Amino acid sequence: MTLKFNNIYINESAVVAGPYLYNGPLSGKFDDCYSDFYDKEKTFEDCEIKELEKCIKILLKKISLYNKDIDAMFSSDLTNQLYISNFAAEKLKIPYIGIYNACASFTAELILASSLLNNKDINNVICTTSGHNLTSERQFRSPVEYGSPKPDYSTFTVSAATACLLTKTKSPIKIESGTIGKVYDLGVKDSFDMGSAMAPAAAETFYEHLINNDIDENYYDLIITGDLGVYGEEIFKKYCNEIFNIDLKNYYDSATKVYDMNNKKVLAGGSGPSCLPSYVFSYIIPKMKNKEIKRVLLLATGALLSTTSVNHKKSIPCICHAICLEAI
Amino acid sequence: MTLKFNNIYINESAVVAGPYLYNGPLSGKFDDCYSDFYDKEKTFEDCEIKELEKCIKILLKKISLYNKDIDAMFSSDLTNQLYISNFAAEKLKIPYIGIYNACASFTAELILASSLLNNKDINNVICTTSGHNLTSERQFRSPVEYGSPKPDYSTFTVSAATACLLTKTKSPIKIESGTIGKVYDLGVKDSFDMGSAMAPAAAETFYEHLINNDIDENYYDLIITGDLGVYGEEIFKKYCNEIFNIDLKNYYDSATKVYDMNNKKVLAGGSGPSCLPSYVFSYIIPKMKNKEIKRVLLLATGALLSTTSVNHKKSIPCICHAICLEAI
Repeated sequence: MTLKFNNIYINESAVVAGPYLYNGPLSGKFDDCYSDFYDKEKTFEDCEIKELEKCIKILLKKISLYNKDIDAMFSSDLTNQLYISNFAAEKLKIPYIGIYNACASFTAELILASSLLNNKDINNVICTTSGHNLTSERQFRSPVEYGSPKPDYSTFTVSAATACLLTKTKSPIKIESGTIGKVYDLGVKDSFDMGSAMAPAAAETFYEHLINNDIDENYYDLIITGDLGVYGEEIFKKYCNEIFNIDLKNYYDSATKVYDMNNKKVLAGGSGPSCLPSYVFSYIIPKMKNKEIKRVLLLATGALLSTTSVNHKKSIPCICHAICLEAI
Repeated sequence: MTLKFNNIYINESAVVAGPYLYNGPLSGKFDDCYSDFYDKEKTFEDCEIKELEKCIKILLKKISLYNKDIDAMFSSDLTNQLYISNFAAEKLKIPYIGIYNACASFTAELILASSLLNNKDINNVICTTSGHNLTSERQFRSPVEYGSPKPDYSTFTVSAATACLLTKTKSPIKIESGTIGKVYDLGVKDSFDMGSAMAPAAAETFYEHLINNDIDENYYDLIITGDLGVYGEEIFKKYCNEIFNIDLKNYYDSATKVYDMNNKKVLAGGSGPSCLPSYVFSYIIPKMKNKEIKRVLLLATGALLSTTSVNHKKSIPCICHAICLEAI
């Protein structure tokens, strides 16, 4: 299902980057950083909550608004029952709705926030995501035990908090349209291999978005998926080519752009709900503001598994939601 | 934050009720029932997925629509990473966004669906919730082990799938307004005592909804919270009285209405994301259609804890979102 939006803008954004991200290729482009997984807190979760809260405070400072000026906040993370988002929302006292579509939550939030702004009483909506490598290793990436070896097609969850403000006030980055995706499951059962599992969902939403908008792939200066990783990126291209006869040129996956890929620890690249937005906010939006890129299609992908579904030996249902950004 | 909606309606609804609910005081008012926690499936989760899928199919049959006619579906449940919603969405192939605000998800979904329907391309949106006593005991109600005794102020998760269709086509039940709540945490740490934890969040959202609409409590024929339970209901009334000087007459909590309260197993009453909607769809909406009740305020409450936050000895952040239904 594709929605067209009128006069909805990404007004401002902020990223607080953690280990592996802050000293990678995007180094120096973030609003704030932390260099270890505790950042002086007692638990990984408290660290993640702190960074999310910090990120939203940085965003509010940038736009000279107070918490009370924000009409609603959408937030998502990978922890069970959205532990991180819930506790950050409690501290911030901003009207809050939790979203869970795994790493596709970012674009789901942008679609919902853009719709909410259609209401005349709504003026400022924040969309946030949070990721922390070790909170997600603990709760999400079953059956990984700490320190166990991983295959090289596994991705490495991005530790970062991201936030952006959507408004009706004209700004350089417009949200032009969005497509809400369906869930696809082609039978991949290996929970390390999320790239292979998610690539078909990304391709299906991409194709639906093109058809519904009556455009082809060349309409976009750039198409970015996130987070398929090195191998998932290739599968996505192949799927688009073989199933939909689309030969992609102006495309890559954000998972391969956020880390120093020479570091073997990051394996097939980044993942997590903050992977795509941390890349988009720190690298793509500045380029759009400089008129280097005009139209971008973001395809955020989510692997909708849980430790319980993996233990039940289920395959991995996956989803992708699309958002088109335009520099004006 | 309060939103006013124009021409948004609950077109039709469906409930599939499980053990304790189907043979309680609402017996005979449901669309379908199952009498044991497996219902011929191998796991509790497979049972819950089956009932959710069945419920949506019943809804689609009632409204003579096919899956492809539905523009979007919001779904929520209590399992980690929304296991149930994700797998049901995969089977249904309806554009899907997962929501998590614990037992407040129902009204959050109605607010989001109503907003989405402001878009001219959107005509049919489904809001669903799913609950299963034993999947939530396993993943959510830490530190409860199977068979361990529980205090009498504990609630008993409702096993049911619920679904409703929101449209712009005129129907007897109108969604008039909604309030997105903030997160409140007054320091309750006992994860059995969710009623006490959630009551203040319910009262705060209730008061904000009245102020923003410039009305008093008598504007509504009926005010229903869900799911505070026997004790939380009393705390809510006391909080409203002492903090906001509101003396509630036309109010009760749905947790106390869904079970045979003489059954000691159900303790302080029902809970879970399906508690309030299963009551509203099976009992309140028929009364509204019969013109016995005109205006109802629904205050769905959510306890935003997780097993990890409980193990970290955190207190319980809570939220409540309000929805006003009007019979026309």
